[in-house]
Amino acid sequence: MTPEEFRQAGHAAIDWIADYMKTVGEFPVLSKVEPGEIRDRLPSSPPEVGEPWEAVLADLDEVILPGITHWQSPGFFAYFPANSSGPAVLGDLLSSGLGVQGMLWATSPAATELETHVLDWLVDMCGLPEKFSSRSAGGGVIHDSASSATLVALLAARERATHGQANRHGAGGDLTVYTSVHGHSSIDKAVRIAGYGAERLRHVAVRPDQSMDPDALEEAIIADEAEGFTPAAVVATIGTTSSTAIDPIAEIAEVASNHGLWLHVDAAYAGTAAVLPEMRWILDGLDRADSYVFNPHKWMLTNFDCSAFFVADRAHLIDTLSIQPEYLRNKATESGAVIDYRDWQIPLGRRFRALKLWFVIRSFGVEGIRAHVRRSIDMAQELAGWVEAHPDFEIAAPHPFSLVCLRHRGGDAVNKRILEAVNASGEAFITHTVLDGAYTLRVAIGAPTTTIDHVRALWEKIQAAATAG
Amino acid sequence: MTPEEFRQAGHAAIDWIADYMKTVGEFPVLSKVEPGEIRDRLPSSPPEVGEPWEAVLADLDEVILPGITHWQSPGFFAYFPANSSGPAVLGDLLSSGLGVQGMLWATSPAATELETHVLDWLVDMCGLPEKFSSRSAGGGVIHDSASSATLVALLAARERATHGQANRHGAGGDLTVYTSVHGHSSIDKAVRIAGYGAERLRHVAVRPDQSMDPDALEEAIIADEAEGFTPAAVVATIGTTSSTAIDPIAEIAEVASNHGLWLHVDAAYAGTAAVLPEMRWILDGLDRADSYVFNPHKWMLTNFDCSAFFVADRAHLIDTLSIQPEYLRNKATESGAVIDYRDWQIPLGRRFRALKLWFVIRSFGVEGIRAHVRRSIDMAQELAGWVEAHPDFEIAAPHPFSLVCLRHRGGDAVNKRILEAVNASGEAFITHTVLDGAYTLRVAIGAPTTTIDHVRALWEKIQAAATAG
Repeated sequence: MTPEEFRQAGHAAIDWIADYMKTVGEFPVLSKVEPGEIRDRLPSSPPEVGEPWEAVLADLDEVILPGITHWQSPGFFAYFPANSSGPAVLGDLLSSGLGVQGMLWATSPAATELETHVLDWLVDMCGLPEKFSSRSAGGGVIHDSASSATLVALLAARERATHGQANRHGAGGDLTVYTSVHGHSSIDKAVRIAGYGAERLRHVAVRPDQSMDPDALEEAIIADEAEGFTPAAVVATIGTTSSTAIDPIAEIAEVASNHGLWLHVDAAYAGTAAVLPEMRWILDGLDRADSYVFNPHKWMLTNFDCSAFFVADRAHLIDTLSIQPEYLRNKATESGAVIDYRDWQIPLGRRFRALKLWFVIRSFGVEGIRAHVRRSIDMAQELAGWVEAHPDFEIAAPHPFSLVCLRHRGGDAVNKRILEAVNASGEAFITHTVLDGAYTLRVAIGAPTTTIDHVRALWEKIQAAATAG
Repeated sequence: MTPEEFRQAGHAAIDWIADYMKTVGEFPVLSKVEPGEIRDRLPSSPPEVGEPWEAVLADLDEVILPGITHWQSPGFFAYFPANSSGPAVLGDLLSSGLGVQGMLWATSPAATELETHVLDWLVDMCGLPEKFSSRSAGGGVIHDSASSATLVALLAARERATHGQANRHGAGGDLTVYTSVHGHSSIDKAVRIAGYGAERLRHVAVRPDQSMDPDALEEAIIADEAEGFTPAAVVATIGTTSSTAIDPIAEIAEVASNHGLWLHVDAAYAGTAAVLPEMRWILDGLDRADSYVFNPHKWMLTNFDCSAFFVADRAHLIDTLSIQPEYLRNKATESGAVIDYRDWQIPLGRRFRALKLWFVIRSFGVEGIRAHVRRSIDMAQELAGWVEAHPDFEIAAPHPFSLVCLRHRGGDAVNKRILEAVNASGEAFITHTVLDGAYTLRVAIGAPTTTIDHVRALWEKIQAAATAG
């Protein structure tokens, strides 16, 4: 493909996406294919000779689209939204076009410096503690996901707790980690990967609002200390995946500090809400955390992957993850004057992801991002009002953000039936959780295309499904 | 940005890339900025109000390009090439445009099924053992990098060696891992992350051709067993980063099998060469490996990130990495009829990366990919011939692929001076390694734009720099 052929093929690809943006609401939100159906449409062998671009692009419609669950649909209310936007897509495109590796400052200084700079912007935009900016001993870095960020936080915590001995001699089996019973599954995965062991993770009880009980946390720590364990880290959550519960960060920080634990705060979804001055209270106590992560790819109009990870003392990351082989040695690194982000993450290689975040912030402005977040929250509050006003339904948990957890009062079977009916309609997609033992419907609002009309249509569908049983 | 505004902005972005493709050879390959120089051009605060697209795109030229090291330049001979191509860039673009999450089969069946299918194509294209295809108990998955794949392999090895106990009770400190002294730094990083501990990694001696000595490997294993350690895994390399040495896989497999070790084979760069029937010998013995990784993003015309990881028994990955929270439960997963790739990798979320690999294979055809690889190897052999014919220079290691390691006979200081002079010229970028204690220049050929004229110009520059001292 010559540059001129690329120009032509690229315009066609852009047109395809522009058309998709306009029509995404017309597809069934949830793909209806059966296992194996997409593979059956694909030739068993790769082509020996290259095919024309038109044939490749045509198969996107023919082969791929039927197997797509449309995360950008206005009817997508499942999991948490996967935000995207034109400027983000084009930032990713230009990053692909440049095709640079950002593993070291020297391998493309702009990739590193723009990332540091834009993550400092996030500190300012969200009112994060100054210690998380590169102006201090800390700083921010883009990871692919909060899973990876939490893993890195737990690795740094492991090393702090063992004075670097785990890195040298192995993880041992006496370190314990704490999170609430609603801590994300990535924490369970990270304690396994980092060699703590699943049985060293304590799932602390929650209060009636589903947030971590700091007294129960301290009791668990004291009990472990008494048994000879070394409590190493606590992962608190701002906006749990189940119900967007907010753990009491200030009280947890006090406990963590008293017992010498690393405090990592996971605000993967909800962290974006801190762009709103009226929501900034969610960060109370964060100034005492050691690390923090939130995902612009969930609610800040930036497509996956873009997870913003902040650390109060970058030396912990570098001590834990830096390896210096001869073939990566260079003057800039040895000068100590630059950041090499490979030492802040699991892999060595890295894409130029700061570009899309920069494009999003510049194209929308902070004001535009605030408007998007505020709109999502307003729609959720409106839905919650409708649910509360309905005699057969109940709100299952506090809803400070744009997720509403709700239940029909008829019990699990009715709620499961509602979920299946809604998802079979093709017009909306919702998922579920279990709160206090009860099957609960989750309505996550935040896809940029969703309007209050889509939310109202969903609510009507939920009510209709309840009655139809 | 409305769909129509996106269409217009997108055409401009595509045009920018097409122009960049045409002019990439005119930029200084290695960015010349000083630390902090790019940040100094950026406003300290994010814009409150959104800016027009034209202003954003213009800053790509004004602010970013001076800080770019041009990995797509025909003069880029550093590290290993970061391959890219038009179809790959457009595959990534359309993946961004669809904006789907592929963490579960159910969250977009096409993303999972295309990935499984295209990785089976790679098995066939490269003549990989059938056990690595999804038609067997194994299968392939796309990771961001070989670092992550190697980490996952070492986690699965850890669990196999401890019968799942490390996952439960912690990694312990008695497991050992083996690689050659030229094993990649990602192996050192992975043994730390996975809790083996850096001191449990044995760097096995190499033979004169820089490949792992299988006798030394067995001696190390026997010595560790005698001391009460449990040897868990060996990482062999096809094409080391230093010099593309090829470890003797068949002999290593025999040792691994006799002592019950997991054999992971890292062919990050060189694996693509197996598309050539005449190079297929590099895979001798691979049928006895437990896992294998190579990076289409290094030499298969696919832009980063696209690392192809294969495992002989997928149950090991799932046993090691699967966590099943309520909010991810779904019928397809519970049916057991589908692959959920979140259980094959570190993070939960994942992009639709199979699209770009599919586009590349279809657009170039296997024949087109073979031609690219063959061309790179031919150019390297031609360069090696020139070096051999020169009285003042020597070849420092075997060069079966497209990396040539060479040295001026004048010693380290001369070679360092050559490297600096070449890189200061702006016309080429090379890096170095140390082999047998001597500073060695690495010339990695494989950027799609590189022609024999660029290689000749580099060789002239190297000779001139030697004389100029």
